[in-house]
Amino acid sequence: MKHALSVTREQDFAAWYQAVVSEADMAEESGVRGCMVIRPWGYGVWERIQYLLNQRIKQTGHDNCYFPLFIPLSYFAKEAEHVDGFAKEMAVVTHHRLKAENGTLVPDPDARLEEPLVVRPTSETVIGTAFSRWVQSWRDLPVLINQWANVVRWEMRTRMFLRTTEFLWQEGHTAHASRDEAVAETLTMLDVYRDFAEQALAMPVIAGEKPENERFPGAEATYSIEAMMQDGKALQAGTSHFLGQNFARAQNIRFQDKEGEHAFAWTTSWGVSTRMIGGVIMVHGDDDGLRLPPVIAPQQIVIVPMLRDQPEDEALLDYCRDIADDLNAQTAFGEPLRATVDAKATKAATKRWNWVKRGAPLIVEIGGRDLAAGNVTVLRRDRLYDDAGKLASRAEARADFIAGAAALLDDIQASLHGEARARLNANIRRGITDFDGVEAFFRDGGKFPGWVELNWARPTGQALEKVDARLKALKLTIRNAPRDAAPAEGACVFTGEPAVERILVGRAY
Amino acid sequence: MKHALSVTREQDFAAWYQAVVSEADMAEESGVRGCMVIRPWGYGVWERIQYLLNQRIKQTGHDNCYFPLFIPLSYFAKEAEHVDGFAKEMAVVTHHRLKAENGTLVPDPDARLEEPLVVRPTSETVIGTAFSRWVQSWRDLPVLINQWANVVRWEMRTRMFLRTTEFLWQEGHTAHASRDEAVAETLTMLDVYRDFAEQALAMPVIAGEKPENERFPGAEATYSIEAMMQDGKALQAGTSHFLGQNFARAQNIRFQDKEGEHAFAWTTSWGVSTRMIGGVIMVHGDDDGLRLPPVIAPQQIVIVPMLRDQPEDEALLDYCRDIADDLNAQTAFGEPLRATVDAKATKAATKRWNWVKRGAPLIVEIGGRDLAAGNVTVLRRDRLYDDAGKLASRAEARADFIAGAAALLDDIQASLHGEARARLNANIRRGITDFDGVEAFFRDGGKFPGWVELNWARPTGQALEKVDARLKALKLTIRNAPRDAAPAEGACVFTGEPAVERILVGRAY
Repeated sequence: MKHALSVTREQDFAAWYQAVVSEADMAEESGVRGCMVIRPWGYGVWERIQYLLNQRIKQTGHDNCYFPLFIPLSYFAKEAEHVDGFAKEMAVVTHHRLKAENGTLVPDPDARLEEPLVVRPTSETVIGTAFSRWVQSWRDLPVLINQWANVVRWEMRTRMFLRTTEFLWQEGHTAHASRDEAVAETLTMLDVYRDFAEQALAMPVIAGEKPENERFPGAEATYSIEAMMQDGKALQAGTSHFLGQNFARAQNIRFQDKEGEHAFAWTTSWGVSTRMIGGVIMVHGDDDGLRLPPVIAPQQIVIVPMLRDQPEDEALLDYCRDIADDLNAQTAFGEPLRATVDAKATKAATKRWNWVKRGAPLIVEIGGRDLAAGNVTVLRRDRLYDDAGKLASRAEARADFIAGAAALLDDIQASLHGEARARLNANIRRGITDFDGVEAFFRDGGKFPGWVELNWARPTGQALEKVDARLKALKLTIRNAPRDAAPAEGACVFTGEPAVERILVGRAY
Repeated sequence: MKHALSVTREQDFAAWYQAVVSEADMAEESGVRGCMVIRPWGYGVWERIQYLLNQRIKQTGHDNCYFPLFIPLSYFAKEAEHVDGFAKEMAVVTHHRLKAENGTLVPDPDARLEEPLVVRPTSETVIGTAFSRWVQSWRDLPVLINQWANVVRWEMRTRMFLRTTEFLWQEGHTAHASRDEAVAETLTMLDVYRDFAEQALAMPVIAGEKPENERFPGAEATYSIEAMMQDGKALQAGTSHFLGQNFARAQNIRFQDKEGEHAFAWTTSWGVSTRMIGGVIMVHGDDDGLRLPPVIAPQQIVIVPMLRDQPEDEALLDYCRDIADDLNAQTAFGEPLRATVDAKATKAATKRWNWVKRGAPLIVEIGGRDLAAGNVTVLRRDRLYDDAGKLASRAEARADFIAGAAALLDDIQASLHGEARARLNANIRRGITDFDGVEAFFRDGGKFPGWVELNWARPTGQALEKVDARLKALKLTIRNAPRDAAPAEGACVFTGEPAVERILVGRAY
């Protein structure tokens, strides 16, 4: 069977991913090392993510603010683990002016900064400094804030959306009067991410705690949501950190409690980024391109008139625009439905395949015959072909289609989620009791083996480093200890000691 | 009469401005040179601006995208005027890693970039490079895009919102097949800005063309909207540039036209920034703090229960929350009304004055007596005092207040706009026919003189430089040539030649 992309997932998953990013007009190389241009269709998906996640962040009591892009070096020096974690990937501003020299531009030596500025890789230090001004008494707590921003982490090998030098994200930062409250906040936001991934992105995830060696630099505990890509690899799609009092000490976030005693606050931070879009592509895409869950599709229904550059085109366009208006007056997922007419002067077949590649959930082609019969011809992007391998487009009375459109979008959303959920469930192997079994699973598991769920004793320090090294030799990492896993049983796969929890292990992006 | 701020506009306008920014919780110094922290209330205003302006940008056919923060030096070198205009204020990234040295962190000399990167001061060059990839044929035109982003221009003297090293803005960039179409686009967006400022910000502005010497570096024509602050100074609140083919030549944006000929595209760019918030403060603020137009107020109605830390508080809070729910079910300005209850454990009077300083359009105080009588006590922020100088709060039946709330907000919006429009109209002096008259006006015009409208011959080059120098000596600049000014008459105030248009001259931020 011929497909719209020149490479299939089976042939070369990495090349397929790049093909989707490019053919679906999601993003492109910018010419600036490690930075991408997010094109309108890709940015439209990000706008949908922002809009929907922002609602959830506000509903849980957080306010948005904005903090500086630049952070003085000295702010970083205060939290030792934090700086160790980020120093190797920081972009550093050293000058504030250019001058012409021998016909080219160079940083002006007279405009060298006394203290270099780091372009934020994350904002705990600069936001913590603000918290130290804002928080004096228990009455000022909790502080619950979020920002939508760009951040920079210098990457040597980049992949669009998944790992770029600059990326877009939201970072939440909170301060609390007690450990319990801060832990509860960390888990609340983890659950917001889990729910958002499942409901909005139709992307099933497993929420759990990261092992000690995978914690955010400076955190006491890091939680993640992990999604399974179609190549069986894991994608960490969001993290939530309990920072204990580490940053409060470093940034001096202190308050007077109800009893008049001074104490350090307890802080958290949590974020998701444009990386999520990479996850959507690798969870839902197929060999014809992207398939977007309707909830996050910039356009849910695209109407393609089969224009012939003839006077009759006008009537056809009117018919299409009327249908779009009727659709846009409907509600889908509690919001106005999003339908548009692609009236470009391009061949209808080219437009159809463009929208297939971009993953518009419903593509409606309308020609003269449809107009005459009062019909529309509908193509579901998630079920493109019939059993015979032919395009499964179906003529339907216009009124019926409009009346059923919202339900159809519901069905597509549920169907994409169900498909991905079934894949995740089917590709986690349980019951392996020793490391040989782990090795055999990833050796014999085929091209896209999936993950294993293992019982372990939660070793720490050097014992954990040994585990990590054994796994790394197989290109594996511990993803997380799922919060809803069954109780541990038997012996630790790594140490033989009694197991205390279950962890997921797999290859990862 | 005593006011909520410690300094009045009359006493010290600059100090008053800083007091409002601070007391209204809009923004604060960040500790990072020239960069501010935008606090939740200030960022809430920006979110309203983004939401409403974004709708207008999309309605006029533009799509949002995202382009890199970093721009290679070589991109700038291609447009000579452009680089001259910005080279002196560019933050330059020269290293991508830090290392520890003698116990402190320093940029790692082994991680020096081969080509330094500029933190974008504006994105014509990097977006133009993308356009050159996107545009091949007339069918690819027009390209109509926009991005919401942070930009950096190194400033020596900064003022919150008005002039900061980093600021937030939107920048639109378009490419067209013809000069006429690009000019039309430039003027369409100027009008979008004018309408937005008037309707959303209740900020009257004058739209017109900048003189040659005030053009955007590399532009063929620059248009602006200019607002009058309460100290009579002008604030340039938005600009729209017709770039001709200058950037198309520099970035090689070429297309094949319908006749098969190759031609350079015609481009435009246009932007507004967080500076607008400074304008809102200086147009609408009074000696009690900020007054926010309801359309852009993060909360339009704030309900302050007079809590006494007694069991009765619960009934009072329920009453307040019911009212807020009823209000939030109303529509104001075509959107759901925004009302909230301030249930903080702070004295009611303190909370009232906090909301006065923040400029919430309606403040509703509710005590036990109101609850018993089924009343609310309402304070209009735009008419805080009665004729006797007492707080003009007024008791009203709850149901009446709810039924009339949206109309009341309409009235506040119109009233703020009307007040500012009357001030603008009253403070533009026409009929001055020679430069002595200009000098006299600004010498004798009192503390806040306003602007003059002058007939001029539109000199260029050195003649314009002379005009500029004479004005600068009086701390004056040409703001713009209003598009809706009366036809020119008489002689040029500067050169004596026959006048060809009218210009506005004033002091400016």
